Amino acid sequence: MQPKPPVHYGDYLQLGKILDAQLPESSKRGQMAHDEMLFIIIHQTYELWFKQILHEIDSVRAILKLVPMPSTALATIVGRLQRVTEIQRILVEQIRVIETMTTLDFLDFRDDLIPASGFQSLQFKLLETALGVRATHRLEIEKQFFQSRLKPEERSTLESASQETSLFDLLQAWLERMPFSQFAEWDFWSQYATKVEQMLHRDEQLITNNPNLDEKVRKMELSNLNTTRETFLTVLDASRWEKARKEGKVRLSQTATLNAIFIQLYRDWPVMQVPKQILNLTIEIDELMTTWRYRHAIMVQRILGTKIGTGGSAGSDYLKQTTERNRVFTDFFNLSTFLIPRHEIPALPDFMQIEMGFSYDGHKL
Amino acid sequence: MQPKPPVHYGDYLQLGKILDAQLPESSKRGQMAHDEMLFIIIHQTYELWFKQILHEIDSVRAILKLVPMPSTALATIVGRLQRVTEIQRILVEQIRVIETMTTLDFLDFRDDLIPASGFQSLQFKLLETALGVRATHRLEIEKQFFQSRLKPEERSTLESASQETSLFDLLQAWLERMPFSQFAEWDFWSQYATKVEQMLHRDEQLITNNPNLDEKVRKMELSNLNTTRETFLTVLDASRWEKARKEGKVRLSQTATLNAIFIQLYRDWPVMQVPKQILNLTIEIDELMTTWRYRHAIMVQRILGTKIGTGGSAGSDYLKQTTERNRVFTDFFNLSTFLIPRHEIPALPDFMQIEMGFSYDGHKL
Amino acid sequence: MQPKPPVHYGDYLQLGKILDAQLPESSKRGQMAHDEMLFIIIHQTYELWFKQILHEIDSVRAILKLVPMPSTALATIVGRLQRVTEIQRILVEQIRVIETMTTLDFLDFRDDLIPASGFQSLQFKLLETALGVRATHRLEIEKQFFQSRLKPEERSTLESASQETSLFDLLQAWLERMPFSQFAEWDFWSQYATKVEQMLHRDEQLITNNPNLDEKVRKMELSNLNTTRETFLTVLDASRWEKARKEGKVRLSQTATLNAIFIQLYRDWPVMQVPKQILNLTIEIDELMTTWRYRHAIMVQRILGTKIGTGGSAGSDYLKQTTERNRVFTDFFNLSTFLIPRHEIPALPDFMQIEMGFSYDGHKL
Amino acid sequence: MQPKPPVHYGDYLQLGKILDAQLPESSKRGQMAHDEMLFIIIHQTYELWFKQILHEIDSVRAILKLVPMPSTALATIVGRLQRVTEIQRILVEQIRVIETMTTLDFLDFRDDLIPASGFQSLQFKLLETALGVRATHRLEIEKQFFQSRLKPEERSTLESASQETSLFDLLQAWLERMPFSQFAEWDFWSQYATKVEQMLHRDEQLITNNPNLDEKVRKMELSNLNTTRETFLTVLDASRWEKARKEGKVRLSQTATLNAIFIQLYRDWPVMQVPKQILNLTIEIDELMTTWRYRHAIMVQRILGTKIGTGGSAGSDYLKQTTERNRVFTDFFNLSTFLIPRHEIPALPDFMQIEMGFSYDGHKL
Repeated sequence: MQPKPPVHYGDYLQLGKILDAQLPESSKRGQMAHDEMLFIIIHQTYELWFKQILHEIDSVRAILKLVPMPSTALATIVGRLQRVTEIQRILVEQIRVIETMTTLDFLDFRDDLIPASGFQSLQFKLLETALGVRATHRLEIEKQFFQSRLKPEERSTLESASQETSLFDLLQAWLERMPFSQFAEWDFWSQYATKVEQMLHRDEQLITNNPNLDEKVRKMELSNLNTTRETFLTVLDASRWEKARKEGKVRLSQTATLNAIFIQLYRDWPVMQVPKQILNLTIEIDELMTTWRYRHAIMVQRILGTKIGTGGSAGSDYLKQTTERNRVFTDFFNLSTFLIPRHEIPALPDFMQIEMGFSYDGHKL
Repeated sequence: MQPKPPVHYGDYLQLGKILDAQLPESSKRGQMAHDEMLFIIIHQTYELWFKQILHEIDSVRAILKLVPMPSTALATIVGRLQRVTEIQRILVEQIRVIETMTTLDFLDFRDDLIPASGFQSLQFKLLETALGVRATHRLEIEKQFFQSRLKPEERSTLESASQETSLFDLLQAWLERMPFSQFAEWDFWSQYATKVEQMLHRDEQLITNNPNLDEKVRKMELSNLNTTRETFLTVLDASRWEKARKEGKVRLSQTATLNAIFIQLYRDWPVMQVPKQILNLTIEIDELMTTWRYRHAIMVQRILGTKIGTGGSAGSDYLKQTTERNRVFTDFFNLSTFLIPRHEIPALPDFMQIEMGFSYDGHKL
Repeated sequence: MQPKPPVHYGDYLQLGKILDAQLPESSKRGQMAHDEMLFIIIHQTYELWFKQILHEIDSVRAILKLVPMPSTALATIVGRLQRVTEIQRILVEQIRVIETMTTLDFLDFRDDLIPASGFQSLQFKLLETALGVRATHRLEIEKQFFQSRLKPEERSTLESASQETSLFDLLQAWLERMPFSQFAEWDFWSQYATKVEQMLHRDEQLITNNPNLDEKVRKMELSNLNTTRETFLTVLDASRWEKARKEGKVRLSQTATLNAIFIQLYRDWPVMQVPKQILNLTIEIDELMTTWRYRHAIMVQRILGTKIGTGGSAGSDYLKQTTERNRVFTDFFNLSTFLIPRHEIPALPDFMQIEMGFSYDGHKL
Repeated sequence: MQPKPPVHYGDYLQLGKILDAQLPESSKRGQMAHDEMLFIIIHQTYELWFKQILHEIDSVRAILKLVPMPSTALATIVGRLQRVTEIQRILVEQIRVIETMTTLDFLDFRDDLIPASGFQSLQFKLLETALGVRATHRLEIEKQFFQSRLKPEERSTLESASQETSLFDLLQAWLERMPFSQFAEWDFWSQYATKVEQMLHRDEQLITNNPNLDEKVRKMELSNLNTTRETFLTVLDASRWEKARKEGKVRLSQTATLNAIFIQLYRDWPVMQVPKQILNLTIEIDELMTTWRYRHAIMVQRILGTKIGTGGSAGSDYLKQTTERNRVFTDFFNLSTFLIPRHEIPALPDFMQIEMGFSYDGHKL
């Protein structure tokens, strides 16, 4: 066997290209601003990480398109989404590095960069798109900037990407394929509805009969209780849910939502282990995405105050608005609303216990 | 010399009390919920840390009341505020621990806690108060909860605390005592005003003459520029600033603001080292406080969805509102607005260079 | 229904006790050292977290004693061990807080503490014992300090604890109950042995025929290869393994090891999901424990230099020695040694594919 | 004024090169291993950060060569070294990302990489060299690998780098220029020696007269005390120190050490603020460097067990050995050994109080 030529660390990592890709604009006019190197390098590391996250998300999407999925597929999905969250933690932590750049240090080269802007990070937009942000969700100002600032080929790349099925859509479809939203032999959902109603009734009694509450607070608590009741009625009624969905209050379909609620209620059973983890990972990813956006907005405020950004945007105020707006998996977050205390959860009938557990060769592992 | 009785680790730390202070409510009804232990212990660690932060903030306030301060005082303040930020980082990180508690695990004992609520953390309110949050800043709902949920003695402790001079007030007074807001022998502020105006004029030209801008964006950028100009005019004009202050747009006095701007502009000079660090630490503390609030709100949404909290509050929505509202040091953040590029900063006259540097026995250290 | 008396936050958390348990020794002699408060409080938070970790580890041990375990038990174990790792991360991070205390600040009260010492943390010793550290593993100096510094009742508590079955023992027993170390209908282990031998042979050829290696390096690589071969031969041979175990080179039994290797090789299959996670969590716990020990030793070196500790111990040098010594789950770490590339892993026979996957009502989830 | 062509985000960051520099070896044989992308990208981010750290360290070295340094230079040094520590924190944190790659995932492409190795990271060796690691400190095996694995041009780059003055050397020279190692008008060092001797004597009495100590422990404590006494005698005696230095027990010169001790003892005085921070930053950098090495070794053990690395090295065992060995700033760590309690520190004479404080225009800031 002929050994192939030995691999060399620096060649393998193409360090010739990687480490020769930092040309400060301030150097071009003959007076390099020391901190521009940091500015370039940290953005490059962000872009490398975005590439990696896209690599993971794309592979997860490819797996989710396989119906039925191979037996080992879900474990692979879990591993890759967990990796995404670990990378996201680094993205958040790294903000502390950029915060070592003071305003004066930034002003040494800020004008050299105009009108370049983080807005123009194609990969970040692709990532949002892959997760499930759609043009219709974006702020008007954000869309406007897109149109004017991206290169034509970037715009068309983004356009194609937004035609693809997003992670949100694929997870929804996966949840819709599950068999828990109705059962031929078990009236689970009506038992659930009864339990919810009993629970709400008890709460109402507690509030009404509590002698320690002043009237203003009692009224507020009863009003909150009614909102909760509404929410439960909505999830159990296809047409109400569809209405809420059209109004943009929820995004996930009713069938997917019911299946997800069922998973969360019986999350400790063996067959639920991996599905449960996937639900949790969407929540983690969303939480880290919004945390990154928030920290990023604060960092911009810290360095720029209320100055406008290099791209002409209103800087940190704009960024704060996207924090909530571009969240994709809020409905997975809000599943908690529909959970009831464990001792109220209907017991699994025998046939379900067998289906939901598993044994190996007679052994429970 | 008679040795005193040997100190024993467990006695010294009063572990008898500390480790015997966890009595789950769920145990009282005979069925301990496993996760209630975590719930108790993590809150206890938060309260211990709040005590420590108050210990530091109170000592810093005591030092700032000494006029003039001893030579070594500022270094002590820096050390203690840095410690506060390191503790705050733990407060933020710890949220991940509470997030290991799932909704179902929490529902196992949530009803046992009603109507106790994190609202009732006296120390947290004391901390906000010590930093400078005043009742007038708080949301109506927040105040209302105070009134009904605190014990009478807690209310009066909080009332007294709010009469004390806050860290914000003391830092403001310290800044006001500084001599940089006007100079007998140097027309710094008019030079500064000229530089700002030249800079803004250049920016205006750039926007007006740029052939690549579409008209909508050009208009927006010019409007942003005008806002920036307004901001500079305000800081340089005592009566405008006072008006903005009365309208609640700024909180810090004009004199304090001008001195702080001067520090930030000449931050690299030896005499500015410690003052600069103190300004930065207020920013760090504010950033970490708001990050904690934001992460806390997200965590509550994760565990409760849109359910109401144990105290009857609207949970995560309410919490998100306080994120921005209860910030104390925003004006220190926004100092960045008033900084101009280093090459525009007026050079220090000779007499200032001597005042602002220092040498030791002829040595520059 | 009669509402029970309302729960109050401060009473519930017993803040009266918790926040009244800080009595600096330096105060007793009339001159409180400011930083002693931090010293007390951070140790109290450590002790609270140790209590929480013990709460989790004890509950996990109780579950592992149930044979057979209920269907939902493994998921519970995973959740609790994950929580332990999140707490451990805080234990490591908190070291940064204590590092804000300078040497001079510590010396202000160090002599007041003599001879108290972190050695005397009973809970830390209980935690090590619960995980599986046994007196025979401990350094002589460590044992000696135990004898002299613990109170008699502490010594007897620790003595009893060391009689209990440790987490290590229980996990070993759980692994030994698994059916993968031999199969009636499948000669898996001989196929595995063949694959290993082929792989080693190929490597040997590569080394021998590589014209680019200098002789010294070639010799070293062949010697490394032989060590690897030895390791594989040992795990596949009961008597060799037992010998290695007696010599203290390995701790886990051969049967448990073989089952663990099998889990790691087929880790992506549905039935392996939870067992795989448990193996990984032992590794995480061990990694974080050793990281904590290392960071702790460095922190002590930073504050004390080469001074001796308050307990009279040799300080950071001693601590560095326990870093490796008191690791419990090294064998789980070293499972990686026995893994072979995926394309070499014997394919599961059909009967195993059915056993190892699972479906729900005909659906693959 | 003619606007220069608008800067575009992607062009500015040279994303064409950066994002096109990932060519997995496994792809070349037609079967891309999914995780090789992570392996490449994380190493590329490490290399980018190494470049940034070198940028900072090189600029700090350039500043330290200016004698005398400009007034604002030390503040610049502090800012840049702080940035280095923030980056180092990311380097440590990122290890968690690589730990999401399991052994099987790594084995999918490990053989493709042979004999490339992290050993071959030229920038890492340059960084160690810039800090002050010299060939004489390195393990024999490490040197041997260098010789055989680096390209000739890399070897010569490293050779030149090792001729340059290291950060250690420059900081030593800066400390040596300070005037605190002897005073014409103040017998500080003999007062210090007396205080040390009194302190040691008191400790000896305490140990000798303590009735609670058993003899074995008393003997050990007296022996520890003698070691401490030796250490103090050494630092105060030029020829003993030089001997210890020749034996490799210490690296920093006596004069530099004495000046550093003085800074640490009077660290709260204004003129000491920046020097104190620089000393602390060397400690932070060293602590983070060694933490990174330790976590890296553990990560390798986790993924490879006791398998050898791709470069043929003995993997994690070797790495653990370099953890302590390649530390540069241990002497700065050990300064703590020489500090005495604040109330024992000789008071500054009046002339020193004036020299060491500073005022601005009569104001204490």
